[in-house]
Amino acid sequence: MAPIITLTTDFGRRDPFVGIMKGVILSICPTARLVDLTHDVDPQDVLGASLALEAALPFFPDGTVHLAVVDPGVGSRRRPLAVRAGGRYLVGPDNGVLTPGLGGPRRTAVALTAPEYRLPEVSRTFHGRDVFAPAAAYLAAGIPLERLGVPVAAPVLAPIPGSRREGDGLVGEVLTVDRFGNLLTSIEASGLAALAGDGPVAVEVAGGPAAGLVEAYADGVNGRPAAIIGSTGRFEIFVRGGSAREVLGVGRGAPVRIRRSR
Amino acid sequence: MAPIITLTTDFGRRDPFVGIMKGVILSICPTARLVDLTHDVDPQDVLGASLALEAALPFFPDGTVHLAVVDPGVGSRRRPLAVRAGGRYLVGPDNGVLTPGLGGPRRTAVALTAPEYRLPEVSRTFHGRDVFAPAAAYLAAGIPLERLGVPVAAPVLAPIPGSRREGDGLVGEVLTVDRFGNLLTSIEASGLAALAGDGPVAVEVAGGPAAGLVEAYADGVNGRPAAIIGSTGRFEIFVRGGSAREVLGVGRGAPVRIRRSR
Amino acid sequence: MAPIITLTTDFGRRDPFVGIMKGVILSICPTARLVDLTHDVDPQDVLGASLALEAALPFFPDGTVHLAVVDPGVGSRRRPLAVRAGGRYLVGPDNGVLTPGLGGPRRTAVALTAPEYRLPEVSRTFHGRDVFAPAAAYLAAGIPLERLGVPVAAPVLAPIPGSRREGDGLVGEVLTVDRFGNLLTSIEASGLAALAGDGPVAVEVAGGPAAGLVEAYADGVNGRPAAIIGSTGRFEIFVRGGSAREVLGVGRGAPVRIRRSR
Repeated sequence: MAPIITLTTDFGRRDPFVGIMKGVILSICPTARLVDLTHDVDPQDVLGASLALEAALPFFPDGTVHLAVVDPGVGSRRRPLAVRAGGRYLVGPDNGVLTPGLGGPRRTAVALTAPEYRLPEVSRTFHGRDVFAPAAAYLAAGIPLERLGVPVAAPVLAPIPGSRREGDGLVGEVLTVDRFGNLLTSIEASGLAALAGDGPVAVEVAGGPAAGLVEAYADGVNGRPAAIIGSTGRFEIFVRGGSAREVLGVGRGAPVRIRRSR
Repeated sequence: MAPIITLTTDFGRRDPFVGIMKGVILSICPTARLVDLTHDVDPQDVLGASLALEAALPFFPDGTVHLAVVDPGVGSRRRPLAVRAGGRYLVGPDNGVLTPGLGGPRRTAVALTAPEYRLPEVSRTFHGRDVFAPAAAYLAAGIPLERLGVPVAAPVLAPIPGSRREGDGLVGEVLTVDRFGNLLTSIEASGLAALAGDGPVAVEVAGGPAAGLVEAYADGVNGRPAAIIGSTGRFEIFVRGGSAREVLGVGRGAPVRIRRSR
Repeated sequence: MAPIITLTTDFGRRDPFVGIMKGVILSICPTARLVDLTHDVDPQDVLGASLALEAALPFFPDGTVHLAVVDPGVGSRRRPLAVRAGGRYLVGPDNGVLTPGLGGPRRTAVALTAPEYRLPEVSRTFHGRDVFAPAAAYLAAGIPLERLGVPVAAPVLAPIPGSRREGDGLVGEVLTVDRFGNLLTSIEASGLAALAGDGPVAVEVAGGPAAGLVEAYADGVNGRPAAIIGSTGRFEIFVRGGSAREVLGVGRGAPVRIRRSR
């Protein structure tokens, strides 16, 4: 069966960097199926790439290789990494970007030190091409992970922010804003169970007006903020027929507070 | 032969939504060939997605599955749809977005109600992932359309605007603006035959100066609007070496009038 | 083995033009693997497309077909071209865009005149769909180049700018700016050998402050311009943690001067 390799980078699509990585991959593993998760992560935004990976990982079959290159430290001493965990592979710099995939069972990690699984010439500016794409391709072609380099005991972790109890509520933050202007918060739906009361839920962003919880975007009122459990199981703020980012004037990092009336 | 699935959405490419749909598709139908038509339809712009589909349908082989998700009503009662018509398949919400493909012979439409051909858990925010991608993948994998759900007699139609006679001319509107700033109008080349006279054709947009009809972009005069029969058979206004949108200051919906001097 | 076709255009991704070309390709050669290099070349920027091709060509296997459509002269008398050179194929308009691939050994070029290898109906506005995509697909499907049309002795060349000696330095220009705001210059690393002295290298852009040469982006000082040998072997100016374009306020064509202290 043709192995799948997903690609997540901050390279954008204007330059040919991503296409070049694909050329390297297909030169090594001609049968690989390539799926772009996103290449429009903000430059050097490790959290942004992590969020994309986290959302996508559950929907790819076992054996998929997930390649993520957001790499401000390229050419420095940060380690290039390949990991097998929970039935999937992850390849990228050891800077935390792979965190959402590292929690799986039976995790094995190696630093990509074996020269025979890199390009013959390794630049100090484009490890996506010279180190990471080859590693992903060799894994997809069936080379055992252990042959790519030396074991790494503790990959760098950069967990996605969560939420905490504060008074009678849950407090978190805006993690990212999607194309529709919806605000993805760090508060998971499961947090609700811990709240006192069983009245309606109210969500406040940056001290703004409280948004009620609805079940579908179509249940919102045009132009007014409402909350919903988004597709990754977190609270999301949206404005039906508009953009919550614009209506509320907030972005990543804005504080979010959820409580329940009694 | 590997089945083709095209994807048309308003999800953008910054978020991983499209990649996630592809993960779902390849999990179900690992041999599918995936082709992006566009993911940069304006948010909730059903007509924009229809125009993309209409332009692309004739150029894909029989058996292709066309998946189009521009879905302001996700989670509400609008039906999710799969259609077989004219040798191809279409999958998307029943809001008119699939209209350009619905005119084919021997049309059969079903609502996607069969739970075994959705993801096990269906959210109310992301049917692209949970309902539409699985349906497209099962069709590509050879599951008969009829098994995906219950018959639908009359899918919603949202025809692309056309033109009408008015005095000695044809009147229509700007449908969309392409990347080059060219204005695609709703007036089809075939309409010309109905006009009196056989003199030169003049096209006016929003009452602006009349543009003459030329045969190739290179035949235009730099900086001046000219008309051409575009690649979908409709009149188009362009400015050689510039942008008709900027030169004329108009966009979708601007009135267009075509006449012929005698 | 599945043949690879790369695609480079200025069509953008908002309109379905690229997807339509892929439909044409897969209709003719269903096994082709399609890789986008970029579709965000500035409209009609032949040099921009050439730079993308140049960077990518070395990383694709022999037999790859590289399709590049930046074609201000579509529908005019410029010739549509297919070339075999250095083990690869190139397809595009004869306006210089293919130049980086034309230097290979045993070059054969033809004009795409054979009607049986075009679409049955050829518009004068979209040769990417009607002429170039079919040619690329037929080549990928194994049709000999010579059957696509009549020989062309001297394809148009539009070489990428280089550098020249001036006083004790090398003088060139900014070729393009990448997504990170890095300035790619026309001066190749190999030029350094020709300079007198063996002291530190200093790079000036548009008469601005001299940037020193470092080995990795991580070696730069936050907020200050530095020079590096980029991934295509040319001098590049970058600002660690920022954008050289913004810090220096320059873009394509800005003069660059490199010298060496003694």
